[in-house]
Amino acid sequence: MRQRYYIEDIGEYVNCEVTLEGWLTGKRSSGKILFLQFRDGTGFIQCVASKTDVGDEAFASADGLTVESSLIVTGVVKEDRRAPGGYELSVTGFKAVQVAEEYPIGRKEHGDAFLLDHRHLWIRSSRQFAILRIRATVISAARDYFDSRGYTMLDTPILTPAACEGTTTLFATDYFGESAYLTQSGQLYNEATAMAFGKVYCFGPALRAEKSKTRRHLTEFWQIEPEIAYADLGDIMDVQEELLSEIVARVLKDRARELGMLKRDTAVLARVQAPFPRVTYTEMVDLLSKNGVEFEWGNDFGADHETVMSRTFDRPFMVTHFPKSVKPFYMEIDPDDERLTLSVDMLAPEGYGEIVGGGQRVTDLATLERSIDEGALPRADYEWYVDLRRFGSVPHAGFGLGIERVVAWICGIHHLRETIPFPRMLNRLRP
Amino acid sequence: MRQRYYIEDIGEYVNCEVTLEGWLTGKRSSGKILFLQFRDGTGFIQCVASKTDVGDEAFASADGLTVESSLIVTGVVKEDRRAPGGYELSVTGFKAVQVAEEYPIGRKEHGDAFLLDHRHLWIRSSRQFAILRIRATVISAARDYFDSRGYTMLDTPILTPAACEGTTTLFATDYFGESAYLTQSGQLYNEATAMAFGKVYCFGPALRAEKSKTRRHLTEFWQIEPEIAYADLGDIMDVQEELLSEIVARVLKDRARELGMLKRDTAVLARVQAPFPRVTYTEMVDLLSKNGVEFEWGNDFGADHETVMSRTFDRPFMVTHFPKSVKPFYMEIDPDDERLTLSVDMLAPEGYGEIVGGGQRVTDLATLERSIDEGALPRADYEWYVDLRRFGSVPHAGFGLGIERVVAWICGIHHLRETIPFPRMLNRLRP
Repeated sequence: MRQRYYIEDIGEYVNCEVTLEGWLTGKRSSGKILFLQFRDGTGFIQCVASKTDVGDEAFASADGLTVESSLIVTGVVKEDRRAPGGYELSVTGFKAVQVAEEYPIGRKEHGDAFLLDHRHLWIRSSRQFAILRIRATVISAARDYFDSRGYTMLDTPILTPAACEGTTTLFATDYFGESAYLTQSGQLYNEATAMAFGKVYCFGPALRAEKSKTRRHLTEFWQIEPEIAYADLGDIMDVQEELLSEIVARVLKDRARELGMLKRDTAVLARVQAPFPRVTYTEMVDLLSKNGVEFEWGNDFGADHETVMSRTFDRPFMVTHFPKSVKPFYMEIDPDDERLTLSVDMLAPEGYGEIVGGGQRVTDLATLERSIDEGALPRADYEWYVDLRRFGSVPHAGFGLGIERVVAWICGIHHLRETIPFPRMLNRLRP
Repeated sequence: MRQRYYIEDIGEYVNCEVTLEGWLTGKRSSGKILFLQFRDGTGFIQCVASKTDVGDEAFASADGLTVESSLIVTGVVKEDRRAPGGYELSVTGFKAVQVAEEYPIGRKEHGDAFLLDHRHLWIRSSRQFAILRIRATVISAARDYFDSRGYTMLDTPILTPAACEGTTTLFATDYFGESAYLTQSGQLYNEATAMAFGKVYCFGPALRAEKSKTRRHLTEFWQIEPEIAYADLGDIMDVQEELLSEIVARVLKDRARELGMLKRDTAVLARVQAPFPRVTYTEMVDLLSKNGVEFEWGNDFGADHETVMSRTFDRPFMVTHFPKSVKPFYMEIDPDDERLTLSVDMLAPEGYGEIVGGGQRVTDLATLERSIDEGALPRADYEWYVDLRRFGSVPHAGFGLGIERVVAWICGIHHLRETIPFPRMLNRLRP
């Protein structure tokens, strides 16, 4: 493929003439000098054109370009400390590709519905650009973490015959005459692949028909889920801690410019280093009570509780040993207290709440069969899963890290809908 | 996390004592010496135990273990050229974790249905192990290719309001009262993200209700789909060629052992180097006719034609300029012949057929609107997509590489169902 230049790498071409292919995001003119705000998908740069350098005709044609017109600009790269990215382009020539119609997204404030309706264009704006570039880095860092440590990536199915995380949020489809459900998590299948490949992970979409309209829920979100054979609760807590530290370090290193665009306080992120605080569910209930929050032992924490809890610590922290009543059937029972499970949630600080959920899985055949029956789950649908306890059962543990929740926290943004290219929520299926 | 040893890295520990955690795959005994075939998910190794070394009791207990029992073995790593992996473990101690029930998959031949019903266990066998490890490497190599070249990974939605690849193979679900369809391809959304991020890719599942029961179709498969702004047909042909060469080189380098387990002829794979042959659709029709295959210009190639074609070349090859009649509405028209499109399919040799499909997309607003109307597609569903031609339209191109088809060809195996952990096909939704 032909040699191309991108704004991201522009620092390598100071005082060289380069051609950039992109779009106009704005312009102003002083009559003889034209300042073009320009983006090419890898960054933003100001292009400065003087009538003397480019000639009257080219100058006039560029002056007539509308916002989001596509444009090829040639010019010399100049270092300029005052410029946002540190560089400017001194233009020697233009070529307009397409003159855009009047662009619907302007400088004025738009409502949420309007922006979401125009998500295919909204993603071009600098804030969305920064968030989604950080998302890509979070995903890449998470995968690299596992790939470099001998985990085998094994995709789990999207279409499944049964529920993994309860039946109230299932999307169903007709599968050649029988009912199939869209996956809510790859975990049960991960347990099968962990018994075959030792250390595994899956990375894929999870679909849950969440009827609640909160800033923390999407109906379609992405999870990375490792599962390890011959591992216990303590082992996966170590993995969680190390994984999150590595993700954050990578974003700090590779996406400093994007964090700056979001005005994110990076001091908070720099503190994300092991060891993370580890507290039990029961200690957490006491802490809520000390903070004047009424909470009955045995209930699940809600978003409000999580918010209170996650303002208590200056870095991510882990809550362990939740009661059986609030965790799924596959969680291993605590051998020291049978009311509890060997489970762990990780919460982000600054009020962000849960970003990781996991634990050790039931090893014993009879215990698992009892759990399935107690949950009134259809035994036939889980026979294959029960088989994993008949043929070489071993202690094993794993977790799921929600990509959008991690991205929202790292970016310091309020609503999950900005952390995914095309968010899906209650009443939001378009574009 | 505690230090652990894996068979994959065993060569680093010659003459050291290590502990391996895994499963027994078979055993034979000479009365005083026990040969245990052992796997830990990263590989297979023979463990040799003498009654003298481990003691009568431990020897007897190990001798009583059934196939697929979980077992922790300690021993000294010995180099042994005769051993399949080059190493053997001279056992000093055992610990049985769980004694397996009678394992349903044995040495005798099983029917396809039986193996697919037991897919959660079948993946433990050495052939499935090799295929799925190669799959993980193919995916990792493909992602690394794009990540290292400045592409931004942006996930496209699973739940969509409209069809991308025709309406006959759509899976539908109720989405809070309206109809949603499961994605068949991320391409239309990739075009939106390419206009925002320049070079993008998505990697995710595609779902198609294929009613045909062939060895080349799954209802659920994974695709990696790049899309590049300011790129044409020639550009993405270069990318296809380079990407596939890099994937194959990586598998040859990192998965030589697994290719050996599959008895794959690697000479064929070593030939996968640019340039790949490039022929037009029309030339291909002539070639079919010369091979005595009847084929009418303007029709689409079927699996049988692809098989004939893909025996013609000794490496992957690209077929370009398909007629409009066989390509979707978004394909750019050939400026030199308006009956043709700027499209390209890549086919694998050895009879494997199509592994990549792509092309340049329509740039012009009026042309796209006409194509949508000619295809009788609901205009309202595509308004956002048409917007990409209103606001800074640029030439752009991309493609989709089908992971399972690439894996099947690299592994040299017949049926796609073995290339994915849990295959979904007509009448196959379990486990």
